[in-house]
Amino acid sequence: MKRLIASSLTLALAAASLAGCATTPAQTPDTTQPNGTATTVATGSTTVPTAPKYVFLFIGDGMSYPQMQSTADYLGALTDEDYWQAAPSLDDNQGAILDGPEYLNFMNFSAAGSAVTYDSNSFCPDSASTATSIATGHKTYSGTIGVDETATVEYETIAEQLKAQKGWEIGIISSVTINHATPAAFYAHQASRNDYYEIGLDLIDSNFDYFAGAGFSKPTGSDGNQTSLYDLVAQAGYKVAMTKAETEAITAADEKVFIVDEHVGGDSAIPYELDRTEEMLSLADYVEKGIEVLDNDNGFFMMCEGGKIDWACHANDAASSIHETMALADAVDVAIDFAKEHPTETLILVTGDHETGGMTIGYAGTDYDTYLDLLESQKISYDQFDRQYVASYKENKTSFDAVMADVTKLFGLKLEGEEGDKLVLTDYEVEKLKDAYEKSINGTTTSQYEQEETVLYGTYEPLTVTLTHIINNKAGINFSSYSHTGLPVAVLAEGVGSDVFNGYYDNTDIYNKLAEMLEIA
Amino acid sequence: MKRLIASSLTLALAAASLAGCATTPAQTPDTTQPNGTATTVATGSTTVPTAPKYVFLFIGDGMSYPQMQSTADYLGALTDEDYWQAAPSLDDNQGAILDGPEYLNFMNFSAAGSAVTYDSNSFCPDSASTATSIATGHKTYSGTIGVDETATVEYETIAEQLKAQKGWEIGIISSVTINHATPAAFYAHQASRNDYYEIGLDLIDSNFDYFAGAGFSKPTGSDGNQTSLYDLVAQAGYKVAMTKAETEAITAADEKVFIVDEHVGGDSAIPYELDRTEEMLSLADYVEKGIEVLDNDNGFFMMCEGGKIDWACHANDAASSIHETMALADAVDVAIDFAKEHPTETLILVTGDHETGGMTIGYAGTDYDTYLDLLESQKISYDQFDRQYVASYKENKTSFDAVMADVTKLFGLKLEGEEGDKLVLTDYEVEKLKDAYEKSINGTTTSQYEQEETVLYGTYEPLTVTLTHIINNKAGINFSSYSHTGLPVAVLAEGVGSDVFNGYYDNTDIYNKLAEMLEIA
Repeated sequence: MKRLIASSLTLALAAASLAGCATTPAQTPDTTQPNGTATTVATGSTTVPTAPKYVFLFIGDGMSYPQMQSTADYLGALTDEDYWQAAPSLDDNQGAILDGPEYLNFMNFSAAGSAVTYDSNSFCPDSASTATSIATGHKTYSGTIGVDETATVEYETIAEQLKAQKGWEIGIISSVTINHATPAAFYAHQASRNDYYEIGLDLIDSNFDYFAGAGFSKPTGSDGNQTSLYDLVAQAGYKVAMTKAETEAITAADEKVFIVDEHVGGDSAIPYELDRTEEMLSLADYVEKGIEVLDNDNGFFMMCEGGKIDWACHANDAASSIHETMALADAVDVAIDFAKEHPTETLILVTGDHETGGMTIGYAGTDYDTYLDLLESQKISYDQFDRQYVASYKENKTSFDAVMADVTKLFGLKLEGEEGDKLVLTDYEVEKLKDAYEKSINGTTTSQYEQEETVLYGTYEPLTVTLTHIINNKAGINFSSYSHTGLPVAVLAEGVGSDVFNGYYDNTDIYNKLAEMLEIA
Repeated sequence: MKRLIASSLTLALAAASLAGCATTPAQTPDTTQPNGTATTVATGSTTVPTAPKYVFLFIGDGMSYPQMQSTADYLGALTDEDYWQAAPSLDDNQGAILDGPEYLNFMNFSAAGSAVTYDSNSFCPDSASTATSIATGHKTYSGTIGVDETATVEYETIAEQLKAQKGWEIGIISSVTINHATPAAFYAHQASRNDYYEIGLDLIDSNFDYFAGAGFSKPTGSDGNQTSLYDLVAQAGYKVAMTKAETEAITAADEKVFIVDEHVGGDSAIPYELDRTEEMLSLADYVEKGIEVLDNDNGFFMMCEGGKIDWACHANDAASSIHETMALADAVDVAIDFAKEHPTETLILVTGDHETGGMTIGYAGTDYDTYLDLLESQKISYDQFDRQYVASYKENKTSFDAVMADVTKLFGLKLEGEEGDKLVLTDYEVEKLKDAYEKSINGTTTSQYEQEETVLYGTYEPLTVTLTHIINNKAGINFSSYSHTGLPVAVLAEGVGSDVFNGYYDNTDIYNKLAEMLEIA
């Protein structure tokens, strides 16, 4: 399954709904208070477990309400073609009625709260500090992994504690590099998220049972002269799988597993969903394999990061954000299937670490209208377009018209078309695109202000980011930043103990609630 | 109290926290299931009420997560001067640690959920349809009040039902006109929110017990030739108070009350908090007087709208949005005080109808930094600046330098200043401001594209909206739209039955949960 289509999603939602029925504590007396403790209680003659034995924590990096809701609205727009035919815009609605969003599986979870994300030095925090808060219950500085603001106190993580105190097996999955900030916050303790080699050494020291996703950033250190982390991982007794075939050959009998996708790009991240082909593993595949490896009688904790929602939103690429969020929902589906088999023992949490990009469903140029289906015309991620196309445009000084031929094929945007075709560029948009083309291809700029260029392009390829800005805006989506923002994130929970995740609380309380429920000392 | 200052807010928060203790069901067995029904249950020998008798519903028009959180972050920034002195930006932090937000009282409520806001023809809905969903449990078209999409079926509202079925007294309060969309959705049934006169007639027909806030839009009809709604209100037996003294003279003995602030502006809305003076009544004052009028043995329902959060965000005026949100929290404080006296009988709900403006805490130009304290320099709402200053600039063709003298006084922005003074305009900002000045004062434009002008200014006064854009962006705040957006809204709940408002659900479920809890047929 490369991309979810609406009908398969509907099935997935039905399954999620069933799973919700199977795993919701509504079947057992609700003995928890909001924000309180879940314990094992005797009800009449039977003892009902109120703490889970299998915990899935999905973190959509950069995923807050706008990322989730825009995906649900996009899917709703795609499946509601009748409506958009009858009502091409608000002003000429012919009596049709909008069906609304198609909710992602985790948006139907029985519990939902909000977590506030500021860190020790910013209302717009980073993944290192926020993942540390989720993993350890402590605030720290942006860029810091698992240690305090002075980098002298190490904070134990929920994963380390569950392994040490309860003998649980631990799995860490990411769609970006496995020593990137979010996964690192569950096993590493370093003053800087950029100390990739040292974080890699911490990974090995953790002795966790399952790592999967993209490979290591800087596997031989920042100077390239250290023993490869891949060699050290193998020496430490991990079975390393680098291909789909090797991954499929991993079984429950393998005790320590390290999976790297051979298709990782130059930045060591697995491909964007928009660019992924059938032969490449998905985030859902990693979760499925992880369950096989981790399943045991004591219990397990699995953290799975959808890391490229964040990268897509940094680059203001709404279509990629939506497809990465759908991929995260696919991965959650695997956990929901597991929960159906273990309804009284499983807790599934889905949250974000912070919002990225200041994404909004609505834009000044489209007023109260949205045309989210236009995003279906984008067939490639900003990143793949940079690598596969813009690099050669620069080398060959490709003409604007030749570039536009590719743009029409890959983004749907065109210079001319039938009346009412919303993908036809306006004169204003053409001028913006030509300015960006000049900047990307010839390095020349029409702006006299650096401040204006920063807002227009950030640190991204001007041509590419202008293309995504234009298609976003035509669809009624906007981004205000190339960085993270201060919006709270959603915390969705299903299964044993899920009720305590209702409410409006600090992100450190995600750890606190888990630790209390799991009786971590 | 004209404006909350940090210290008084801290006291208010402490009070809210106490009130939370007083009203949370943690003192009684939690017998409700998330999304389930609250009923009266026998626990041992005593019967515990699980349905409230006094319901407060506060609606921040246009208030979603960004509006709430930006207010809390702004207050946090103001009270954390030590931090900002030591860490003027992320790059030169000298070991200081950010204290974080100062939460508004309702952000500490024990239950919190999210409501999805799309309506029958838009993912970016309006107040008429969304307030209809909250008041009646039905979706309808944007612009429609209390009727279905064909305008042939009237939907009974929760307020009408509580009055008819339970004999409760009903109060409707707004900081904008009392026949505006949000208040209207609780008593009126009209195909168009613009049928102000007919909505006014519906208000009189409702026979509700208490109306307060600004006056009527179009009190003599769209052609100005109908009998004044004010006369009709008085004829219908309402005691009408037009001044602060008359309002203060209203007592519990008055059965039907209609309060209009004599200070209403040309648009019949009470002044923005930034412009309000001591002699003008506040939203909190209206709630306090409402409790006095409505209190009775059967019970009461009070809807109180903070309507100008929306208006401020339409105009992209972040400082006004923050101060209006603080005023809503002040009004909620009055309800919290009431709940302390009636802890087992009161439910307080705080929500929004939709998000307005696509507000983000974060901006491309400020990256991971925010400087929210800069918004303290804004001393006037965009609206008052338009009326009191820009009108005369246009008439007198006031010079740019003379305008800038006022701007420095009223917004803090200046052409020159000490190094590091973040309120000094950059060359780029000066150019944008001069373009806007030319457009406002002389009607001339530097842009050749209408599309660009729409994004720059919307339908607002170019000079004013450019000023708020600049100060917002310097503070690290941005808006993406002059309209509403598709972000879900928060639903915060405290008191009897509050737990059912946890979760991620449709805005129609706000009505459904209330109706089920209150056993409305």
